Amino acid sequence: DTKFDPTEHPHRRYNPLTGQWILVSPHRAKRPWSGQDETPSTAELPSYDEGCFLCAGNTRISGDVNPDYKGTYVFGNDFAALMTDSPDVPKSADPLFTSMEARGLSRVICFSPDHSKTLPELSVPAIRGVIDTWNEQIEELGQDYLWVQAFENKGETMGCSQPHPHGQIWANSFLPNEIERKDKHLRDYYQQYGSNLLVDYATKEQADGVRTVVETEHWLAVVPYWAAWPFETMLLPKAHIRRMSELSDEQRDDLSLAIKKLTSRYDNLFKCSFPYSMGWHYAPFFKEGDTSTEHWQLHALFYPPLLRSASVRKFMVGYEMLAESQRDLTAEQAAEKLRNLSDVHYKEQDQ
Amino acid sequence: DTKFDPTEHPHRRYNPLTGQWILVSPHRAKRPWSGQDETPSTAELPSYDEGCFLCAGNTRISGDVNPDYKGTYVFGNDFAALMTDSPDVPKSADPLFTSMEARGLSRVICFSPDHSKTLPELSVPAIRGVIDTWNEQIEELGQDYLWVQAFENKGETMGCSQPHPHGQIWANSFLPNEIERKDKHLRDYYQQYGSNLLVDYATKEQADGVRTVVETEHWLAVVPYWAAWPFETMLLPKAHIRRMSELSDEQRDDLSLAIKKLTSRYDNLFKCSFPYSMGWHYAPFFKEGDTSTEHWQLHALFYPPLLRSASVRKFMVGYEMLAESQRDLTAEQAAEKLRNLSDVHYKEQDQ
Ligand SMILES: O=P(O)(O)O[C@H]1O[C@H](CO)[C@@H](O)[C@H](O)[C@H]1O
Ligand SMILES: O=P(O)(O)O[C@H]1O[C@H](CO)[C@@H](O)[C@H](O)[C@H]1O
Repeated sequence: DTKFDPTEHPHRRYNPLTGQWILVSPHRAKRPWSGQDETPSTAELPSYDEGCFLCAGNTRISGDVNPDYKGTYVFGNDFAALMTDSPDVPKSADPLFTSMEARGLSRVICFSPDHSKTLPELSVPAIRGVIDTWNEQIEELGQDYLWVQAFENKGETMGCSQPHPHGQIWANSFLPNEIERKDKHLRDYYQQYGSNLLVDYATKEQADGVRTVVETEHWLAVVPYWAAWPFETMLLPKAHIRRMSELSDEQRDDLSLAIKKLTSRYDNLFKCSFPYSMGWHYAPFFKEGDTSTEHWQLHALFYPPLLRSASVRKFMVGYEMLAESQRDLTAEQAAEKLRNLSDVHYKEQDQ
Repeated sequence: DTKFDPTEHPHRRYNPLTGQWILVSPHRAKRPWSGQDETPSTAELPSYDEGCFLCAGNTRISGDVNPDYKGTYVFGNDFAALMTDSPDVPKSADPLFTSMEARGLSRVICFSPDHSKTLPELSVPAIRGVIDTWNEQIEELGQDYLWVQAFENKGETMGCSQPHPHGQIWANSFLPNEIERKDKHLRDYYQQYGSNLLVDYATKEQADGVRTVVETEHWLAVVPYWAAWPFETMLLPKAHIRRMSELSDEQRDDLSLAIKKLTSRYDNLFKCSFPYSMGWHYAPFFKEGDTSTEHWQLHALFYPPLLRSASVRKFMVGYEMLAESQRDLTAEQAAEKLRNLSDVHYKEQDQ
């Protein structure tokens, strides 16, 4: 009988955070491509664009004028998906037609006044400013909301409608699907094994190293064993940290460095501004005193779509939407490719 | 207090087939767009393209020559994501590093020899041919596999690498995530209420009509109450049908008509070849004699990404990937837009 070889044979891997399987088809990376090409913008942008709603000093659609900010700048999204005061939804007795109220708000975080830069091109201290802003926003909004989702859509491929470096914060009166599911899986593991799933996971990945992309003193970035997107990574602290607010000054500085290195490796892979959606998961703001959050661990998730070049992406479509996520290279192969690159951004290499 | 108005106020709706919520933000459709434009190909294609791997008489990458087919034509995918003989995966004792074997195969179904046509442009009898081919393939592969996913990726936006009208069939030795989850939810409902969830749902939608897009003698296409994609639809029979093989000759002819009408409305919405991923769900091929499938109902799902024009799509990115699906118009608004269009394809209207 043929012996199983994960780099040759299709198999499924289990994501213990979601309870979902991923179909891994490592032999499939060879197929030809004649479909849609992404056209990553290589045009150098100016540091200031008078038509940009996010640049310092400019007037937004709402009529508000951005201040002459130097680091990060936060404002309320002029087209928020949520309202702070949506009314309650009348209860329905029919299990097939059920809805519920959703309250919240949405803010934009400009990462830098420099229109031409992206996260990996910011200095380590500037990235530290972004981290501090994330933390302040999350803590402030967490006083009123159960969940605060901080995320960044980077690149047009990921639906980003503004090149100016920025992320978003959506605060929710409810636990969104992904957080509710993760809370359940983390809690179940904690009850069954008496330890924290992601702390255990980081310890094992650190010891192994085969899926590691970046390791700094306090942080680890790995392509998770169960990654769905080709170059998906998870960035997590080595210590048990439930929320960003628990990070020491040193751990925050080190996080800035880890983000700089990880996102520089991404850009170096195909020598382009690597598109992705990224965001933070951490202990929700449960209000009841008795809801423990020991099972939670702070971590960031990066979901980048590119597969084989700056212009060929993975499509999560037909089979993936109707049946199951599928990937064309193993997590270990993806990690190795990212690890073999410099962690200095290609634009900064010859300086 | 303000009274809840689903066309004004953000709310969440529950999908009883998946147990997931969808965030509905009906007031958000007004925001401006300066992001990626889709460029739908409007170029008229020739009926035969000598460079196409799917056209009759042409040689594929494998070296095989396509016959001079007249209706549909099925062949094994030259770059299948699955193998019929992948070996078993050794069991792991670690809950964080779990994988399992996955066997299967993948086939391509050419819908027509005419390179220039898409599904809505085929005649009703030609679509009937596609339905019969789906059914034959599913029944044949169901003898060896637990699940057979029939689907179509239409348009470059949906990762389709070949304009020639075609779909795919992936056979699986396992129940993919989406099917396993749906099986559980359908079964739970059946046990709790003693009736079939989707049969009950179709009856209620038919009586209401507010989410109906197409109704024929035996079929109903609705924008589900819990739709995630802007113009998502579900196409289901009015009678209880577990699998396509149970359809009468008349029900199949009528299905061809319903597909023709539904996909023509799609193309008419933005006067373009409307991209989507679509596929069939139905009772899996459980082998044990005691696994009842009474709780299953045959249905097709259409997931189209376009939102506001032929070039502006909905992106399921940052918040959606990390937290929860979000939509910018209600299911009822989407259904009304589709219902207000002709069900005759715009290219066939002046003939
Ligand atoms: O098989 P194709 O059409 O080349 O590929 C397309 O459909 C597959 C099944 O949904 C996906 O896995 C691929 O990402 C997509 O590009
Ligand atoms: O808010 P933006 O950047 O205009 O919009 C983008 O991110 C949102 C949050 O992930 C998505 O709902 C939109 O589909 C996407 O285009």
